[in-house]
Amino acid sequence: MKHLALALATAGLLSSVLAAPKTAPKSGALKMTAQQILAASPASDWRGLDPENTLLMDLATGQVIIELAPRFAPAHAANIRALARGGYWDGLAILRVQDNFVTQWGDPDGDDAAKAKPLPAGVNAKLPAEFSVPLDRVGKDAGFAKLPDIEGWAPRTGFAGGMPVAADPKAGKAWLAHCYGVVGAGRSDAVDSSNGTELYVVIGQAPRGLDLNITTVGRVLKGMELLSGLPRGGAAMGFYDKPEQRTGIQRIRLLAEVPATERPALQVLRTESATWTQLLDARRYRGGWFVHSPGYIDVCSASVPTRPIPPAPQPPK
Amino acid sequence: MKHLALALATAGLLSSVLAAPKTAPKSGALKMTAQQILAASPASDWRGLDPENTLLMDLATGQVIIELAPRFAPAHAANIRALARGGYWDGLAILRVQDNFVTQWGDPDGDDAAKAKPLPAGVNAKLPAEFSVPLDRVGKDAGFAKLPDIEGWAPRTGFAGGMPVAADPKAGKAWLAHCYGVVGAGRSDAVDSSNGTELYVVIGQAPRGLDLNITTVGRVLKGMELLSGLPRGGAAMGFYDKPEQRTGIQRIRLLAEVPATERPALQVLRTESATWTQLLDARRYRGGWFVHSPGYIDVCSASVPTRPIPPAPQPPK
Repeated sequence: MKHLALALATAGLLSSVLAAPKTAPKSGALKMTAQQILAASPASDWRGLDPENTLLMDLATGQVIIELAPRFAPAHAANIRALARGGYWDGLAILRVQDNFVTQWGDPDGDDAAKAKPLPAGVNAKLPAEFSVPLDRVGKDAGFAKLPDIEGWAPRTGFAGGMPVAADPKAGKAWLAHCYGVVGAGRSDAVDSSNGTELYVVIGQAPRGLDLNITTVGRVLKGMELLSGLPRGGAAMGFYDKPEQRTGIQRIRLLAEVPATERPALQVLRTESATWTQLLDARRYRGGWFVHSPGYIDVCSASVPTRPIPPAPQPPK
Repeated sequence: MKHLALALATAGLLSSVLAAPKTAPKSGALKMTAQQILAASPASDWRGLDPENTLLMDLATGQVIIELAPRFAPAHAANIRALARGGYWDGLAILRVQDNFVTQWGDPDGDDAAKAKPLPAGVNAKLPAEFSVPLDRVGKDAGFAKLPDIEGWAPRTGFAGGMPVAADPKAGKAWLAHCYGVVGAGRSDAVDSSNGTELYVVIGQAPRGLDLNITTVGRVLKGMELLSGLPRGGAAMGFYDKPEQRTGIQRIRLLAEVPATERPALQVLRTESATWTQLLDARRYRGGWFVHSPGYIDVCSASVPTRPIPPAPQPPK
């Protein structure tokens, strides 16, 4: 009865079973595990958190770190920054957890104009829909790492600036795809009815049918388990029946407003890096415990790693 | 700040935005919502639970219903039946919840031969790997409803007997795909090291890279939220650090052993039915809140509905 050895994050050595992969391996990563690839990565393949585009959400259970993607939703990102600067979410709550779909937070009284929390200064009550952007905004010069792997949801996928991206070259459009951990801005029936006050994060199978229907604004870098591991709500669409079932939000701060001593010492792997390309190949061609490799990944089956900032080299004493 | 109207399970009326879908709609379902399609479904499109292939897992928080898929894993299904009949899991626990991956249960002392719970009579300690079956076992005569939608993980996908299926016609193989809610049997490094005592269920983005690497045995029909909404484990691979963090399993029974009065009054939609085909089309071509339709679904983005057994028609008095 040995415990199941399913290892998601580690890719072992290639076994001889993989002698005939679907397509030729594209990198030298295939003799290395994901851990070895990460350990061998040069410092230049990593970047720090962007103070103007990082949110720190404090819950009683820990901290969630969210990275905004202004290239996909500039107006929403600006509003979300202003909301965080104004302390809008402080004391508000997680209102909804719908299984295999989304966790959502905002103002419990948001639907009641008399009781709704006022918007801080500098926040726009109304924003345009930002469901997609011109493709050239995530084009080659903008660091778009195109995946060779096909899928049915979009003609093209890849990663840009650490975000999972789908694109339609014929239509000249690109968008931040609804993968696990991606954050979006809730809207009502009108396409321009979101303003960033109510946000959701994908917690189940990628609901790619939402792509191009709603504005996606970023992704969770760390702490997803604090949002995904919550009891599901019993009312329609996963809203909680009773106020006491909600999870309170202590505060959400913009990293730029956080004292240096309280900033998370975290780095994010650059999706333009050779390390990321190697990691994707290690996922396509598995080893160790795996006896079969798909020779394939999809844009939602790989997430971009973070790591603690390594200690600076010490001068000799 | 209206609450986000994201409606996963309901597909509204088609809007004019969808005048140019990717491919021609294939059914008459496109003027109906999913709810309307289900409401109009004939009784013959539904089936009852199979007493020999249904498990009832009782947790303090409620009941999880699992359907076994003996056509994909006959030896494992037979063992699991014998394990349930012998009360093997009664008093055992959920040991592991790894975010965006799996929830897993079994014997906390399973790795310790001296303390491990003995196998009930009729249970085989060793089983063959059942990673795939000959394609004809899920062929047309066996009710395989092939999807027209392409994907990158497998050359063919569809549904058979309510299970999400992937297949490789050239290799003549089919398998139960690792979609959300699919249950598998944990194994160690040896491919034939699973025996059904330790089971896992997919709780995140479909880990399709596991396909053909491990034996899948069925899927959760009802109660997924009780397995997916648990706190994630803090140790390696999502195992819990401390015994008290585990969720106890009160018991797991085979439906055939459950008194008639305690059996769930549940029906499952037949995936060979016209109703299922219509529901899939309603997901490809969305209406109502949606302004864009993908004209596409993948095998892991649609789950087979259940419903309470409708009351029998009453004779006139």
